[in-house]
Amino acid sequence: MNEIKIFSPATVANVACGFDVLGFCLDSVGDDMVIKKTNKKGVFITKIEGFDLPYEAHLNVAGVSALAMYEALDVDFGFEIEIYKNIKPGSGIGSSAASAVGSVFGMNELLGRPFNKTQLTQFAIKGEALASKCEHADNLAPALFGGFTLVKSIAPLKILEIPTPDDLFATIIHPQIEIKTSESRAVLPKEVALTDAIAQWANLGGLVHALHTSDYQLISESLNDIIVEPHRSKLIPHFKAVKEAALAQGALGAGISGSGPSIFALSKTEQTALQVKEAINKVYASTGITYEIHVSKINKSGVKIMS
Amino acid sequence: MNEIKIFSPATVANVACGFDVLGFCLDSVGDDMVIKKTNKKGVFITKIEGFDLPYEAHLNVAGVSALAMYEALDVDFGFEIEIYKNIKPGSGIGSSAASAVGSVFGMNELLGRPFNKTQLTQFAIKGEALASKCEHADNLAPALFGGFTLVKSIAPLKILEIPTPDDLFATIIHPQIEIKTSESRAVLPKEVALTDAIAQWANLGGLVHALHTSDYQLISESLNDIIVEPHRSKLIPHFKAVKEAALAQGALGAGISGSGPSIFALSKTEQTALQVKEAINKVYASTGITYEIHVSKINKSGVKIMS
Repeated sequence: MNEIKIFSPATVANVACGFDVLGFCLDSVGDDMVIKKTNKKGVFITKIEGFDLPYEAHLNVAGVSALAMYEALDVDFGFEIEIYKNIKPGSGIGSSAASAVGSVFGMNELLGRPFNKTQLTQFAIKGEALASKCEHADNLAPALFGGFTLVKSIAPLKILEIPTPDDLFATIIHPQIEIKTSESRAVLPKEVALTDAIAQWANLGGLVHALHTSDYQLISESLNDIIVEPHRSKLIPHFKAVKEAALAQGALGAGISGSGPSIFALSKTEQTALQVKEAINKVYASTGITYEIHVSKINKSGVKIMS
Repeated sequence: MNEIKIFSPATVANVACGFDVLGFCLDSVGDDMVIKKTNKKGVFITKIEGFDLPYEAHLNVAGVSALAMYEALDVDFGFEIEIYKNIKPGSGIGSSAASAVGSVFGMNELLGRPFNKTQLTQFAIKGEALASKCEHADNLAPALFGGFTLVKSIAPLKILEIPTPDDLFATIIHPQIEIKTSESRAVLPKEVALTDAIAQWANLGGLVHALHTSDYQLISESLNDIIVEPHRSKLIPHFKAVKEAALAQGALGAGISGSGPSIFALSKTEQTALQVKEAINKVYASTGITYEIHVSKINKSGVKIMS
């Protein structure tokens, strides 16, 4: 096999109570990528469609993760990468993670899978770091492993695969506004009240237990973020109205996707997720802000081979 | 049935990464209590052995929880409570919780179980509050439900039963020193660094996942407390040496039991827990401090009927 086409999915990080550690994988949104073996040694970005991104491998997220993996290989051939980007950079649904994961997943397949998924995450972290200026894996892990993941630690890298209940669906709205990373970082508190931290870890413990036991009521009761949302939600227009509309339609919970501006809601059943979509649509239709809304089941397998 | 003898177990709260929410139940240490129906209306403490505690029901932890339950009843009889106390008050292994739980559990049995365990916890919280000056359930929940419990919230009271792996054993050392509650509270930080809080909830999420999957290695990697232990451990003589001795013998982890002074270690297999006991014993033998050491399997059923 000398060529592979893959689908690299969008992901939702943080998931309310799991700031910096939790994430889940989407199914209906993602990038397509084609990876080819080539006689020339090295990593080459040969095509980019969808968004204006650099072709130089060392300046491109997919290229940097590919180079990190390539350096660990001893081969007399190289790789060409074509990127058909559907996830807008800066949308808050793991655009850079999809790029970083796609290249190393595809190369690993062409090589006969010499690396496991944790090792692939390790390479992809280098690409993610190019985009976000820090090494984190809360979007990479769900993109590679699928379902819900918990990044227990970065050094050493330890990723836990948390079970995903069958009837869980996500609704995501992506307002097409830009929030600067520096701004979304600046609003984070450096210190938090111990009582708030306790409530947050009670919620995270509750959510992990709820996912293991398919307890939708407990998922709902656990999807609270009292640490980050009160600060970052101010940067997202109509956040509160969107969240309230989602909950009013029966969503289990809603919150900021990654560092925003996207907002996610989780629902039991696709029907509820579609009703949530309608309700959110009503909130945003009159705002004058361009936006996209997706409904997606939780993707349990992550990045996958298309052909 | 007009009389019942019960065993109300000692418990370990906090469990390293689960400050204020997590707890587990011991099997080899606990109080015996006898609850009797009596013609006279009201709640009466008729016997206390082991420690010098008040006989007035409204001043006694077991009495206060019993009164809270009694007030919710409409009966023309009363209850007598005999307390054979083995758990020293202030030991950090849930002495007051065992008293608070024992009376309401016994009364509920004599009445034909009109209340569920969450309702019993609700009554027992009143007794616990007499001892600790605040309403918390992180010792009550494991004493009533057994195994590992996570108190997700107090108002409304929501208790999660986390699965307990079969081969888990605890070693507990109780140095017979007094740490004033005011002192153990005073050393707690009011605010914590967000990065520390994230690490702590990653560990708690990891521990909940590890208990669900019987992953002993992950239990070990999750049993870290970077928030409270650095402060409270200073109040416990030889804490560091005890912890290091336990880990050197193969304990999965160790930490402060409740607010101390007791120290717990968790091990895979009873044999390791016994080796940990020996190692801890060596640390404390030469200190001149009186102490007790217990080895216990995790008690999966909690408070129980003896006869």
